[in-house]
Amino acid sequence: MSDLSTTERTRHRRLREQGRTDREALFEVLRAGFVCHLGVVVDGDPMVVPTVYGFDSGHLYVHGSVASRSLEYGIRDGESGGDGQGHGSAVCVTITHVDGLVLARSVFEHGVNYRSAMIYGVPRVLEGDDKLAALRCLTEHMAPGQWEYARQPNRKELAATKILAIPLDEASVKVRQGHPDDADDPHDVWAGVLPLATTWQAPITDPLATRPVPEHIRRHSGPLP
Amino acid sequence: MSDLSTTERTRHRRLREQGRTDREALFEVLRAGFVCHLGVVVDGDPMVVPTVYGFDSGHLYVHGSVASRSLEYGIRDGESGGDGQGHGSAVCVTITHVDGLVLARSVFEHGVNYRSAMIYGVPRVLEGDDKLAALRCLTEHMAPGQWEYARQPNRKELAATKILAIPLDEASVKVRQGHPDDADDPHDVWAGVLPLATTWQAPITDPLATRPVPEHIRRHSGPLP
Repeated sequence: MSDLSTTERTRHRRLREQGRTDREALFEVLRAGFVCHLGVVVDGDPMVVPTVYGFDSGHLYVHGSVASRSLEYGIRDGESGGDGQGHGSAVCVTITHVDGLVLARSVFEHGVNYRSAMIYGVPRVLEGDDKLAALRCLTEHMAPGQWEYARQPNRKELAATKILAIPLDEASVKVRQGHPDDADDPHDVWAGVLPLATTWQAPITDPLATRPVPEHIRRHSGPLP
Repeated sequence: MSDLSTTERTRHRRLREQGRTDREALFEVLRAGFVCHLGVVVDGDPMVVPTVYGFDSGHLYVHGSVASRSLEYGIRDGESGGDGQGHGSAVCVTITHVDGLVLARSVFEHGVNYRSAMIYGVPRVLEGDDKLAALRCLTEHMAPGQWEYARQPNRKELAATKILAIPLDEASVKVRQGHPDDADDPHDVWAGVLPLATTWQAPITDPLATRPVPEHIRRHSGPLP
């Protein structure tokens, strides 16, 4: 596997055993969800907005409308944001899957089992065919089969959609799994893990819809990876 | 219900119908989870880190060790961060619960059912009794009963723990529920919602633990709210 870049901010400083640097670890985290937290700087302060994402081998694509306010501040259509030094309009996108609670003997060792990825980069606002391809990628990641099944965007809808592409070059992946680390603690109590699972439920049909649930939606079931 | 403050950045600009401004809506979102995304600015760029939280009527408490890097930049122990104008070390904490996919007739109307809260503020690093009380609040929010059951932190552990308090004064809550909004679209396909549920699984005992699962952990079961 090729490695993720190690920059000053993606080098693992804390809990080093939890850090992974191979690209496959990044893709595993990306495949397991579809909502990320997009961090931007607005007037010097941070703003963190949840939004949907898709990805391919080189880029993360995020729906930028939720960040419309931040986009007004610095990133212009069809251009990279920032001051040309890669600064000012950089973003940090974090994807986190919470797998359970780590219930240790000591409060100090309590924690969470999780998988997370942080991606840093200067986003590009996509236009034209690039935008359409990214929107397809994002839609298919959320619900495979929907791009062909639903009505694809018309010119006006596409114009009203903002998609950002963020290079998958500078990223950090952390994973914590397994039991508490304080087995040597003399406080003799139960310890272990309380797992959490996130699972697709049966589809609920819009009362105004006239068609049965299609097969590609029926198949979109079971627990998230 | 008293209202949340409406500042320039918490005023709902987009999808106004999704915005809620009462404090009870904020507490509902906070009660439904225990992991937030903490956004800080480091060297002008955003950084978004997942971390656990607890809260009371006036403050959100977050485990600050994960933000140790950002804490080195501006926030000093026992003080508020920033330049005294509330700027520079402000944070944005976002909590998001993903409730399902909104599968519309058109790709353009696809989306996510969710509940989210964004909290803006300048955090204070807690010390002494305040830190201990906040750590108890945070632990009990994650796993009610564990503060009395597990071994409470000793002096050394407490010194190694950073807890931030962020006032719950400036916040924005958004909720999207229900079916797609494009029932008038002529593209005649199935439409509806694919719900997601997050559920506690049976506790897994650490093979090195010698005690049975305690009652307060057995009770910590079922779906998250």
